[in-house]
Amino acid sequence: MTTSDILARPGHAIADDVNARRLSARAVAEAALAAIAAGNEALGAFTDVTAERALAEADRVDARVAAGESLPLAGVPYSVKNLFDVEGIATRAGSKINRDRPPAARDAALIERMTVAGAVLVGAVNMGEYAYDFTGENAHDGASRNPHDPGRMSGGSSGGSGTSVAAGMAALSLGSDTNGSIRVPASFCGLYGLKPTFGRLSRARTFPFVHSLDHLGPLARSPRDLALVLDALQGPDADDPALIDRPPVAAVDALDGGTGDLRIAVAGGYFRAGAGPEALAAVAHVAEALGATREVDIPIAAAARSAAYLITTSESSALHLDRLRSRAGDFDPDTRDRFLSGAMVPAPWYLAAQRLRAAAKAAFASLFETVDVILAPATPFPALKSGTRMVEIGGATLPARPNIGIFTQPISFVGLPVVAVPVWLPGAALPIGVQVVAPAWREDIALRVAEALHQSGATSAPVAALT
Amino acid sequence: MTTSDILARPGHAIADDVNARRLSARAVAEAALAAIAAGNEALGAFTDVTAERALAEADRVDARVAAGESLPLAGVPYSVKNLFDVEGIATRAGSKINRDRPPAARDAALIERMTVAGAVLVGAVNMGEYAYDFTGENAHDGASRNPHDPGRMSGGSSGGSGTSVAAGMAALSLGSDTNGSIRVPASFCGLYGLKPTFGRLSRARTFPFVHSLDHLGPLARSPRDLALVLDALQGPDADDPALIDRPPVAAVDALDGGTGDLRIAVAGGYFRAGAGPEALAAVAHVAEALGATREVDIPIAAAARSAAYLITTSESSALHLDRLRSRAGDFDPDTRDRFLSGAMVPAPWYLAAQRLRAAAKAAFASLFETVDVILAPATPFPALKSGTRMVEIGGATLPARPNIGIFTQPISFVGLPVVAVPVWLPGAALPIGVQVVAPAWREDIALRVAEALHQSGATSAPVAALT
Repeated sequence: MTTSDILARPGHAIADDVNARRLSARAVAEAALAAIAAGNEALGAFTDVTAERALAEADRVDARVAAGESLPLAGVPYSVKNLFDVEGIATRAGSKINRDRPPAARDAALIERMTVAGAVLVGAVNMGEYAYDFTGENAHDGASRNPHDPGRMSGGSSGGSGTSVAAGMAALSLGSDTNGSIRVPASFCGLYGLKPTFGRLSRARTFPFVHSLDHLGPLARSPRDLALVLDALQGPDADDPALIDRPPVAAVDALDGGTGDLRIAVAGGYFRAGAGPEALAAVAHVAEALGATREVDIPIAAAARSAAYLITTSESSALHLDRLRSRAGDFDPDTRDRFLSGAMVPAPWYLAAQRLRAAAKAAFASLFETVDVILAPATPFPALKSGTRMVEIGGATLPARPNIGIFTQPISFVGLPVVAVPVWLPGAALPIGVQVVAPAWREDIALRVAEALHQSGATSAPVAALT
Repeated sequence: MTTSDILARPGHAIADDVNARRLSARAVAEAALAAIAAGNEALGAFTDVTAERALAEADRVDARVAAGESLPLAGVPYSVKNLFDVEGIATRAGSKINRDRPPAARDAALIERMTVAGAVLVGAVNMGEYAYDFTGENAHDGASRNPHDPGRMSGGSSGGSGTSVAAGMAALSLGSDTNGSIRVPASFCGLYGLKPTFGRLSRARTFPFVHSLDHLGPLARSPRDLALVLDALQGPDADDPALIDRPPVAAVDALDGGTGDLRIAVAGGYFRAGAGPEALAAVAHVAEALGATREVDIPIAAAARSAAYLITTSESSALHLDRLRSRAGDFDPDTRDRFLSGAMVPAPWYLAAQRLRAAAKAAFASLFETVDVILAPATPFPALKSGTRMVEIGGATLPARPNIGIFTQPISFVGLPVVAVPVWLPGAALPIGVQVVAPAWREDIALRVAEALHQSGATSAPVAALT
């Protein structure tokens, strides 16, 4: 098997081979490191390559397998957004300022669980500064580029996660999603991305953005990979007081359940009005594959998005206030403006936004009494050209950066689990994502739908054909 | 037994007599209504007297007792702060604006439980506008006066609760405490007051002030009365989503446990620096009665108070924003200024205050690993003369209104249960309260200490000798 053959396959296929000793974890790690060495300069995915650690971890996995263990993610190479603590590396969170922090003393909780499951960390990847981004561009580290067209955005803020997986430098990546930061790069880079239910996965030892909206989750090239990761990462963690104590969901076990019993609807109204032709066509394509004909309106979506903005800007500004005072010049100017605006949001606006959140949660919960799954576009359009400042949405010319997330933001606001699935429309040069939204704590439903789509070929996540 | 004899005794003695059929609930209700008729005009306690309802409820209690029931609060007359919904009465919450609301369709949850326990509602009492008050004065309804000296404040914002119980117009009152509004009138009026653990009692169908700080609780003339009420009011309530699901505490059963096993300490530092001579003497008096010699410092108290202010002004402003826009002229000018200031608090300040709350909770929890009870003054001084605008605290001349609550505010901020106990220093014309602070969910400990003090005569709550 050649290097590119190894990484062209999804993580679960790699793990099967490693568990069966048809392939060594070391060979996989070497293949990933070779792909990074060959492609990273052009694509800007990795800010830190942990080559030595990767080889040592791979050797440990080979030893565990040789000793008879079967590991769910045996030898699967993965990257992490550089807001995850990686022992020995300063957690930069996309910033210049954080590079002055001491190296992390211990891995993030989720990395520790990936290690237990046999995955092999190949490095930390690029992201928008302090995660306040939908583009994948970074004023300090440069852009993480789209492997399907390096002149285009990877999407953000987990841009390097999208780039590294779509380019075959890693089989998986762990990212974070506050307003869409997993689902947007999944859409732009043509990957499957899982934003679990709010409170599902431990955020211990990651650099925060918005305390009441931050989620962590994986990007991958198959729904099965997402399910394997979710099963490996779930569970209580005393180090994260925000974790919500719920029974784990059986993600992998649910995958092959089909969709015959599910009531699936397409989100109308707000989720149509702002969508470009590719987004509308992608949703229609997925709906047709699933036989979904019903449409539901979600009137609270526009207000939910506004409220998500208020909470985002207020909480992130509170987090960065001292840094804004002491090191304003070291911020990305675009990000700094956003944080500064948050410093002046009146508290009653913030509180009104939190009240609206409760109302929006109730509205979605009530909607889910009549449907099991809601389909919505992940982004209004496929990947934009790098540097795009303005876009046309619903007939209006608007700033690109914030509006890339119009469809993801109302969903993370209410904490529902979502799998973004990648659609390649006939003849299209670029993929675009569709959100498969499930009721709270039912990641299994969204994953099951994604798996059915993947198996039928309606959605797919090939490695980019880099030239 | 004369009318004044009946109401001179605490609620539990009345209930014993009614259960034993030595006294009818109707006679008690008539005695309370007579006391209200005689004294209310001078004292300003009641805004609504529910005479007809009281007599009907008393008759039902007599019938239940005659049928063999024994009721924990049989025939005990009580008042409620006028922010509790009382069926058929507009819930004014001390305001002019709320009088335009329709009459409440159903009693507050706690009133329904008082009814089940056999208590008899005699009316709704005066309070500071929208509970933003420590004085017991009200721009629309006049002041609720201190029965021990009608030229002085009752304390607020549950001023009418303090007045009605200290004057013998009711044996008990239900008030609310956000920053001290039960403990301050208990201190000024010489009563026992219980602020339970945050989240212990249902707030359903009461008019809120500060969602994340509001507590409801009783004022009475004995710790046993407080315990009887707590036992009657505890328990789950689907109508209050903020209620925290915890096993009930056995309040009455714990009362006679004594204090021999308890590690009791006096709060130093902040809680000494701002205390006047009577407050210091009262704490010393209680400490001596309990044999407490240890002193603990609570360095976070000053910051906790500031943070409580930020949360109070932000959340209450958010609650009243529409009314401030549409009916600014109908607010009490003092209250309006406070709400307006809250409308301009930057969201990051609010969030910093909520973060500090978590830190302060942890600091108190850690302190309670080494002590079981903390004693602190309830107010810096006994009841002020009505209309006092400035006071001297720790050598500085400061506005009276906000500073009455300097000692109560840091404790409610962290949600700990407190019983305020009334001290009459030798020769003093006025009482002053001491806070008995217990660990979260351990109201039983604070009540047990209060009962020991009451039994020993170190604290007492006589009805005012009105002339």
